[in-house]
Formats: sequence, C-alpha cells, structure tokens
Amino acid sequence: MKLHGYFRSSASYRVRIALNLKGLTAEHLTHHLRKGEQRDPAYLALNPQGLVPTLIDDRGRALTQSLAIIEWLDETWPEPPLLPSDALQRAHVRAFAQAIACDVHPVQNLKVLARLRQLGHAEDDVTAWAAWVNSEGLAACEELIGSEPGPFCFGAVPTLADLCLVPQLANARRFGVRVEDFPRLLTAEAAAKALKAFADAAPERQADAE
Amino acid sequence: MKLHGYFRSSASYRVRIALNLKGLTAEHLTHHLRKGEQRDPAYLALNPQGLVPTLIDDRGRALTQSLAIIEWLDETWPEPPLLPSDALQRAHVRAFAQAIACDVHPVQNLKVLARLRQLGHAEDDVTAWAAWVNSEGLAACEELIGSEPGPFCFGAVPTLADLCLVPQLANARRFGVRVEDFPRLLTAEAAAKALKAFADAAPERQADAE
Repeated sequence: MKLHGYFRSSASYRVRIALNLKGLTAEHLTHHLRKGEQRDPAYLALNPQGLVPTLIDDRGRALTQSLAIIEWLDETWPEPPLLPSDALQRAHVRAFAQAIACDVHPVQNLKVLARLRQLGHAEDDVTAWAAWVNSEGLAACEELIGSEPGPFCFGAVPTLADLCLVPQLANARRFGVRVEDFPRLLTAEAAAKALKAFADAAPERQADAE
Repeated sequence: MKLHGYFRSSASYRVRIALNLKGLTAEHLTHHLRKGEQRDPAYLALNPQGLVPTLIDDRGRALTQSLAIIEWLDETWPEPPLLPSDALQRAHVRAFAQAIACDVHPVQNLKVLARLRQLGHAEDDVTAWAAWVNSEGLAACEELIGSEPGPFCFGAVPTLADLCLVPQLANARRFGVRVEDFPRLLTAEAAAKALKAFADAAPERQADAE
C-alpha cells in the first residue's frame, strides 16, 4: 500500500498509527502542505479535496478521509480491533473521534488559518483562533471520557478515539493550549505513547520531518 | 427515543432522515441555537460539546455526533442499510460523508461564524467565508461521485452520503452558493427529496421551524 501524507498532518498521523497497530506497512509519499503540493493535478485526481491522507490499496484503489480509511483498515484487518464490539460503546468511540475530527481539526487546519491571514489577521489572532478551537474541543473530550475506565480513552486498549486524540494534543501544544487542564486526556495519551505503534507514527519520527 | 435537535441544524437534519428511513420515531426536543439553548447545563450534561443533535435511546443513554448516531442506528436497525455491503464502497460513502461533516459543515457552523463577527468581520465577509467553505467542499464532492452510478450519490438507494448531502446543499443555498455548478449533486438531491423520509425531515416541516 501507499500512504500519501505529511509528517505534521494530524489526519495522516492517525492513519500511520492505525497501520502500525495492524502491523501493516505502506510506502509513505509526502506532500509538503505549506508548499501547496497537495494541490498538484496528479494528486487531486486521487483526492479531489486536495487534503492528506490518501491511502492507495494493493490494487491501486484510492481511499480518502482518515476516519473512513481507518474503519476500512479495521474491517479488512480486524486484529487488533480499533472499535469496541458493543454497539453503544462503538458509538461513543466514534463520537469522541468525530468531536476531534469534525469539530476541532478542520476548524484549525492550514487552509482555515491561511484564510484568516488573507482576511488581514495577524499571527496572534490566528494562533488565538486555533487555541480557542482546540481548548474548547478538548475540554468537551475530557468530559466525554470522564467516567470511562482508563488508561486509554475507552478502557484497556487503544481505539479510534486514541488515534484521534494523540495527534490533536500535539496540535494543541503547538498552539499554546494548557493541556494540563485535561488530565484524563493526558492519561490516555501517556498510555498510547508508551506503545511502539504510536511512537513510530510520531511526526518527528517520519522521513519527511523538518 | 428522544432527539435533541434544531430544525435548521444540518447535523440534526441528517439524523431525522436516518430515523425516517428506518421507520423509527423519536420525540423531538428543540434547542434554539441562536438563543444559546444548547449551552444549558442540563443539556451540556448530555452533550459536553453543547452541539445538536443528541439522541437518547429507549434506555435513556445519550449518543452524540450525527455520523456516530447514524452508524449506531444502522447497526441496531439494519434495514434498509445506509452503508453498502462492500468494504471499499463503504469507505467511499463514509469519505464523502466526512468530506461534508468534517471539512465543510463545522467550518461554517453558527459558532465559527459568530467568532468571525467577534473578530470584527461584517456580514458580507461572514457570508463569503461560509460560501467559500461550501463551494470548495461541494466541488470536491461533485468529483468524488463523478463516476458513481446514480441517481443517489452511490447508486440506486440512499446512503449516509445522501443524508449528509441534502442538508449541506440547503446550507449552501442559504449562503448564496451557485449549486447549479454541481449537477451530479443536484441529481442525487432530487432523487432523495422525492422520498418521503427526506421530505418529512426538511427543516421547514419541523414543529420548531420559524
């Protein structure tokens, strides 16, 4: 398989963790987001949104959107499972993941922040925007798993929720968010980062890291 | 079941369609978003994000995030299915849904537009922002299903993709987007709107419509 991504893209990071947990390897193809390489026509033919990641499977078929890719990986290589077997618990894991992947990440991605700069906002305003989105979203996430047993977001093993949480906390720190306000999230992050699958997927461990 | 929602919330609209397609009924509880009723402490206890929708199941358990709710409904009441049986096609349907639910809708929701106003932007700027997000996202969606047979987004029956598309097109029109640039999306929308399940879920048909 091939994974079109970028070391710092948190959506790519989620998929890298999933591949590692499943014991799968993929050739990593980088697209430098700040240089706009994700807008190349050849790449847009694979991913009309011009976003990373895109996964190309062994038959050359393109899959887009990190959560859809991860669910496909989970359905195709079921072990270890990334979603609980109970339907309600599965819904809670997906909801946590979506609280990050829908309501936090896209509102603070490169494209949105670039648009704020185009509208005349100084860097302080732009960072404050990103910090606001992260703080508010992560505070809700802290509540969502407040009564869940740890150490991971939902119990004793990592799930899709942890795959979204760990990259988002990295973003939050870059924007100066006080992540120590979220002790339950930090417990889950620590458990995840102790696993090689998470550690090897970290941005700074990627070949395209700057 | 009870559905906490709002007539104009496109995420609530998606869940209303799913309930109708499954032949399920739910008591609708409205939260006037412009009055901030989704920030009431009693509601935040159910949904820490302070967003609609929240579905309360027959056992009083709360589910949040529209896509997670819809997948739970689909797993719990499998007929008619809202996702294809083929794993790759299922990934494509989820990716299309997420292209809207992650990358379009949250970047133009009430909270983000309110933040732009707080930053001093006039109504023209705010509408232009929302129109930009919708135009760009829907243009990608048009490509994503360009080679899919119709009339729905993915073939002869509605899927999760159509549940996301129809409410988003309504938003796009409100922001003045030229939806006629997306003929494939309009074909899917027309097929969907011809179904009673979609028609009955429309914002203007809800008891809380203004």
